[in-house]
This record gives sequence, structure tokens and C-alpha cells, in this order.
Amino acid sequence: MKIGVFDSGIGGITVLTALRKALPHAEYIYLGDTANVPYGTKSAAQVVKLSLACAQYLKDRKVDHVVVACNTASSLALNEIRQALHPIPVDGVVEPGIQAVLAESAQTRLPVLILATRATVRSQAYGNGLRMLLDAQLQPVFEQACPLLVPLIEEGWTDHPVLHQTIAEYVRPYRDQFSQGIALLGCTHYPWIQKAVESALPGWKVVNSAQAVAQTVVGALKKELAESAEKGRSVEWVFTDPDALPASVRELMEISHE
Amino acid sequence: MKIGVFDSGIGGITVLTALRKALPHAEYIYLGDTANVPYGTKSAAQVVKLSLACAQYLKDRKVDHVVVACNTASSLALNEIRQALHPIPVDGVVEPGIQAVLAESAQTRLPVLILATRATVRSQAYGNGLRMLLDAQLQPVFEQACPLLVPLIEEGWTDHPVLHQTIAEYVRPYRDQFSQGIALLGCTHYPWIQKAVESALPGWKVVNSAQAVAQTVVGALKKELAESAEKGRSVEWVFTDPDALPASVRELMEISHE
Repeated sequence: MKIGVFDSGIGGITVLTALRKALPHAEYIYLGDTANVPYGTKSAAQVVKLSLACAQYLKDRKVDHVVVACNTASSLALNEIRQALHPIPVDGVVEPGIQAVLAESAQTRLPVLILATRATVRSQAYGNGLRMLLDAQLQPVFEQACPLLVPLIEEGWTDHPVLHQTIAEYVRPYRDQFSQGIALLGCTHYPWIQKAVESALPGWKVVNSAQAVAQTVVGALKKELAESAEKGRSVEWVFTDPDALPASVRELMEISHE
Repeated sequence: MKIGVFDSGIGGITVLTALRKALPHAEYIYLGDTANVPYGTKSAAQVVKLSLACAQYLKDRKVDHVVVACNTASSLALNEIRQALHPIPVDGVVEPGIQAVLAESAQTRLPVLILATRATVRSQAYGNGLRMLLDAQLQPVFEQACPLLVPLIEEGWTDHPVLHQTIAEYVRPYRDQFSQGIALLGCTHYPWIQKAVESALPGWKVVNSAQAVAQTVVGALKKELAESAEKGRSVEWVFTDPDALPASVRELMEISHE
């Protein structure tokens, strides 16, 4: 059982980590498209083109299952990827994220806030999905683009006053209006700053979709894995521009093994 | 007289603005490689490849002169671009920036601080160039990567407390050690936050290389332009991913006309 995981860069490592915890016996290829990072500031047409190239690489490597561990690609290119890879099953991160919000919000009618990149917000993938499933009259759904958070995380400022101030700025309108709510980390980088988001939104529940993605994949693969006697192997790491990796990436790759 | 100006994105507009002021009668093509922005976090090999594609586009458009209005491309790919475009003259931004620092530092022996992207700093183009020309024993040269400044400028936070705090963080070691010095804005985005850098470095002279680049090009073209009776025309704007432009770009394009 070989699972291909791809992201525009290194953010998808948070999803890979959750997958390895849930499915330790699978074999993984992690593809980070670092030559083209970030996707979050590109147009939809570019994101589709780049995502299809990543998907094709994983298909050529004969993976059994693909996880699009990038919110931007999941928001803008999931249909195209599924068509191109058919019959290989493909999971994105948006649908599990929406399910995770629904699980938290059952009967509470708390406001929902999606924090994501500019391209994901522009796609309205989360907003439209949630508004179809919730009673939007009673339970408002907001989407906030946070384009500075990925650069701050990649700079390693994950507990820096500038990070805290930036998050405070992005969430202030919602925090001022609502003392409780559900905030979804709609970018695979954001689990690395989950604590900072939690402290900026006291009284709110912060949902990390990486775990939700892992549960979705486990559900899809349960049967195959029960029949598999393979031992867990290490991850194969592939980057389209390996020389451009931030210094912190080795550490993140090691964390994914824990 | 047709001048081609290219940058990874919109930062080169600061150079274009200075060029139009100095050479109002030339015709311009501005090429922003927004499909691949930012160059500053990519490897040298990727930057060379992308820069050559931009240069080739301008060559095909029959420009008479090319200005590489991107510090990362000037630092990592200028030789390759000059070879590919020969005999079309090519100016980068690094050499004029170094000349501007030398003009300021004549006989002062003040410390020099280059603020730039991660890729420009990694290339050491400014540091090596300056250390050859200065007595590095007496006049220290520092290079500081500031990867958060471009995202902050593109978010429009050009006078925001988070911007001021981020700049303060980057320059603190130098400001604490030296009460005077010369800081070069080694990225074409940074002229938009020149005032913020000046207030973070009281007592320091902040040098904007966009003007220096314009003077270099004027020097090279003086003769041709004196003979030209053409009237100034508007700029032709070309972006490789036009749908991904930040909302602020229209305003910046208009500013370049003033």
C-alpha cells in the first residue's frame, strides 16, 4: 500500500505526520512542489496546471492512493486531479475539514471562521461547502485570508511577538463580535501555530484538519490495510527544488517520524 | 528606443518609476513573472532558468535595452542573461546599488548593511562586490535576509505596527552595535517601505538603488536618446499570471506614471 502525499511545499508534512500516526504500515511518497511554492498567491488556472503535474508524477510512481495535502490545490483543482488519476482514489483536505467543523458545531450554531491563504479564500471552497450544510441564517461562516502566516512560519517565528500580533490583527473582527466560535486551520502550515491561534481566540474551538484528513484516508483504506502484512517503511521525500528548502525543514521531516 | 524591464513580480515597478522619470521619452515593456513569484526563496538553478525565460521574451519583443529590475535575478543570473541576450545591453540592480553605497560611504568608513531576500543574501553578490571595493577590515559589510518584508508589502501593511516591529527585529543587531551606517534596500519592493526602514535605523543613511539603476541606464543611453525625437509612450504591462495580481497593483502601476 503506497500513499502519495503532495503539497506546494512543506506544509503537507503536518498531514503526512497525522497519516503516519493513523496508518503506520503504509509506504509514503511525499512530493513538495518547492519550485513553485506558494500556490496560495497564484491564479486558479496556474494552481490547476501545477497540481496536475504533481498528480501525474505520483501516478507514474504507481501509488495506490493520493492525498492532496494542500488546501489551495484541494480548493481549486480536486475535480481535475480526480479525473486525471481515475481510478486511483484521491482525498483532499477541504472535505475532511468541513466534516471536522460539522462534528464540532453539531447543534451549537456557533459562528465558523476559516483561516486560509488568499487563493483558498478566493475559491470559497470552504464557505460554499459549509453554507450548504449549515443553516447560514443562524450560523454565520466567515473566511479570512492570512497571507502572512506561511512566511512567518517558514521564517521560524512560530512563537514570536510579530506572529501573535499578526494573528490578532487577522482575527480581531471576529473575536470582537463573538465570544465563542469554531476556527478551522484551512492551510496545512497552520497546525504549527495552532497554540498561537488558540490564544488569540479565547473561548473558541480551533480545529486542525490534518487529523480529519487522516481519519478520512483510514476509512477509505481500512479493508486493504487489514489485509496488508507489510511493515512500515520510511517516507521517500521528493522536492521539485530541493536546494530551496528552508533550514527548518529537516527538523519538520524528523518530527513526522515521531 | 524600447526598454524591457523585468522582475519576478511587481517590485520592479519601483525601478520602472525611476526610469520613466529619468528617461520619459523611451518606450517600456514591463514583464512581471507573477506565475513564478517569488524568486527570493528559490534555488539558484531555478532563478537562472526563470530569468532566462523572461529575458528571451523581451528579446523576442525586440527591445533595445534590458533592465533586470529584480535583485535576486541580478544576483544569481546576470551573466547568463547577458550571454543569452548579447549584443543587447543588460543592466542589473546589484552593480548600481553597490555604486550608490560607495558614493555614500566615500571616506566615511561607516558600516554597510544590505537588506535583501534570502536568495540574494545567499548569493553574497552585494557582500562580495562591496568587500572587494572597500577595506573590509575598516568598514564591515553585513547582509541580512528579510523574507517577511515582501509579503508584508504585498499585504499592504506598509505603515502597520507589524511591519515596524518586523523591521526592528531584522535591524536590531546592527542598530545596537552602530549608531551610524549605510543601509541599502537590496530588493526592489523595499523602496515602498523606505520611511519605515529609516525610522528603524535613526542616524543611518538608507540608500534606494532604484534611482541608482535609472542613472546607470541614463548613462548608457544618453547618446541614443539625445538623437531620439520620439515622444514618450505609455508602458506595456505583461504578467505571466495576470489573474494573481494583488489588489494593490493597479495603484502601483498608476504611481509609476506620476
